[in-house]
Amino acid sequence: MRVDGVPYRTIWLAEDGWRVKIIDQRELPHKFVITSLETVDDAVNAIKDMWVRGAPLIGATAAYGVALAMRTDPSNKSLETCSISLLAARPTAVNLKWAVDRMVAKLTVLPEKAREEAAYYNALQICNEDIDCCSKIGNFGSQIIKDIWEQKDRNGPVNILTHCNAGWLATVDWGTALAPIYKSHEQNIPIHVWVDETRPRNQGSYLTAWELGKEGIDHTIIVDNVGGHLMQHGLVDMCITGTDRTTFTGDVCNKIGTYLKALAAKDNQVPFYVGLPSSTIDWGISDGISEIPIEERDVSEVEKISGLGENGDSMQLRITPSFSKSANYAFDVTPGRLITGLITEKGICEASETGLRSLFGN
Amino acid sequence: MRVDGVPYRTIWLAEDGWRVKIIDQRELPHKFVITSLETVDDAVNAIKDMWVRGAPLIGATAAYGVALAMRTDPSNKSLETCSISLLAARPTAVNLKWAVDRMVAKLTVLPEKAREEAAYYNALQICNEDIDCCSKIGNFGSQIIKDIWEQKDRNGPVNILTHCNAGWLATVDWGTALAPIYKSHEQNIPIHVWVDETRPRNQGSYLTAWELGKEGIDHTIIVDNVGGHLMQHGLVDMCITGTDRTTFTGDVCNKIGTYLKALAAKDNQVPFYVGLPSSTIDWGISDGISEIPIEERDVSEVEKISGLGENGDSMQLRITPSFSKSANYAFDVTPGRLITGLITEKGICEASETGLRSLFGN
Repeated sequence: MRVDGVPYRTIWLAEDGWRVKIIDQRELPHKFVITSLETVDDAVNAIKDMWVRGAPLIGATAAYGVALAMRTDPSNKSLETCSISLLAARPTAVNLKWAVDRMVAKLTVLPEKAREEAAYYNALQICNEDIDCCSKIGNFGSQIIKDIWEQKDRNGPVNILTHCNAGWLATVDWGTALAPIYKSHEQNIPIHVWVDETRPRNQGSYLTAWELGKEGIDHTIIVDNVGGHLMQHGLVDMCITGTDRTTFTGDVCNKIGTYLKALAAKDNQVPFYVGLPSSTIDWGISDGISEIPIEERDVSEVEKISGLGENGDSMQLRITPSFSKSANYAFDVTPGRLITGLITEKGICEASETGLRSLFGN
Repeated sequence: MRVDGVPYRTIWLAEDGWRVKIIDQRELPHKFVITSLETVDDAVNAIKDMWVRGAPLIGATAAYGVALAMRTDPSNKSLETCSISLLAARPTAVNLKWAVDRMVAKLTVLPEKAREEAAYYNALQICNEDIDCCSKIGNFGSQIIKDIWEQKDRNGPVNILTHCNAGWLATVDWGTALAPIYKSHEQNIPIHVWVDETRPRNQGSYLTAWELGKEGIDHTIIVDNVGGHLMQHGLVDMCITGTDRTTFTGDVCNKIGTYLKALAAKDNQVPFYVGLPSSTIDWGISDGISEIPIEERDVSEVEKISGLGENGDSMQLRITPSFSKSANYAFDVTPGRLITGLITEKGICEASETGLRSLFGN
């Protein structure tokens, strides 16, 4: 997608043909900083310290991390060492393990001298496949948005509420939940996006708002408490979010607060869609609420907040009393019964076992 | 209630018998600052700049503002002037108008020399009546909490979720939604409170958490996105919030986000109560969603946040991109159908016309 008119991916090869460039997402939305990864340790740090985030982008970064390792030392020992350190960077990230395992499988069968080139090639493949997947989600989803616009007799923009960031910054390009929005925008369908702030890490106001603004899409930031009120007053035409994990029965585990918006959508007959690559489907889990463990993150995310001080520097403030406890549950589960449809790279289906099996057959 | 063991009201007469002391709530939760009001202008500023907030406390402050005016000049002209400037301090605050009108009605019939004493007396009456009303809400509500504790076979604390601040800082003492909690705590019923942060002004983490902590009540701050997840997992035994305006049909207009929690409570069969003085009941409005205008506040509350810097100073940070719009709806309406019961100073009733008329008869 574009930043001030220039097309970007979230990760790409530098002109020198070996260094890996990323957008340092910690500086967004106040500064647009591009960083070079030159070693596998750089890649590990980028994943661990959340210079990059979002399952697909973490996987792509890990793949390039393997390539950087192969460049300096293509030995079996090096392959093993780099895998271990990359996997440890964010142990719960399923996509990271998938990407590293795939790289190892491709490279381990090759002679050492062929590994560097093959590693860069396969990392690029992982990126390109992700873009293709997101693009397809975008195409399928944009049809829904177009239909809503037609139902409104093309009067005014389609008002879409989204939660957290499931845009191109979480993938290599296009995004998952936001891909239909970007595709619709390309088709000149007028869009206005309600961007949930998404406490405690503010991925909505820090990342989604930045993405949409840089692409020139009209948007308004709201605190997470507002969506229900907007839906009660007809100010939301549809909701769309991403998912980190999807049960084969259609339950969706996504950023904390998604469930509350889905309840409000149901209560006000607002369609609620989820955009997902099929890699998030967990065919072994049928009840999201009882079976998906919910990550509890460091409470400092609740107790402190980052922003831009008056002097233009990034700073942190404490926003809770020093004597109060906090809790930081990072995800919640939205039952399939509240979801209008799942938008995948294979098409759109009901959020149910029947729906998912109709697309994926397994 | 107590602050570090010492009992306080939110507003009281100084030992000199004429100055009015308040807690400067802008400094909470990081600093406990007591300020003296010496003139009616001080009272106006305290209301306008939100040193005090909460309908009952605003009314009490305005009443003492009239007393301060009468002290320096008990003329009719002075009574009129002070009324105008107090009413302009927060034009939409119904309680402010009620308190000023009551003071004027009491004083205007008196000779000038009797007005100062009568003004102080009546301001104190307004405070005492508010405390009595909140205390009754607390007594009725604590019975509900006790019943839940018994239903749990007295196993573990009663887990109560609250949104925004409807505690003693919003009233003169006890609070509305929090009064049942304080009364239960006095009866040694173990309580644990989930405190919604309550974006954008963070009255939950800034005020409710502070209140509860100073009273020694176990509590945990969560971002506003978390309540639904907690209820899905049986971690909330009941919800209780306040209300700024209640239709005679039982709809409740309260801090934005209340509706989302009520939806989650309904979806998980968690009882959802609202604590209210009957002065919030609007007998002229039957449909809260279509008839109650929702205040939109300055978007700077969404775009910036206050907290404590590393050097211990209060500071503000910008937390949204400079190019993004924001919207700041301050309240939402929770339909009576989602509310288990209304806890008033006259007793507890169903959130419906039948329920309210059974208590209030009009």
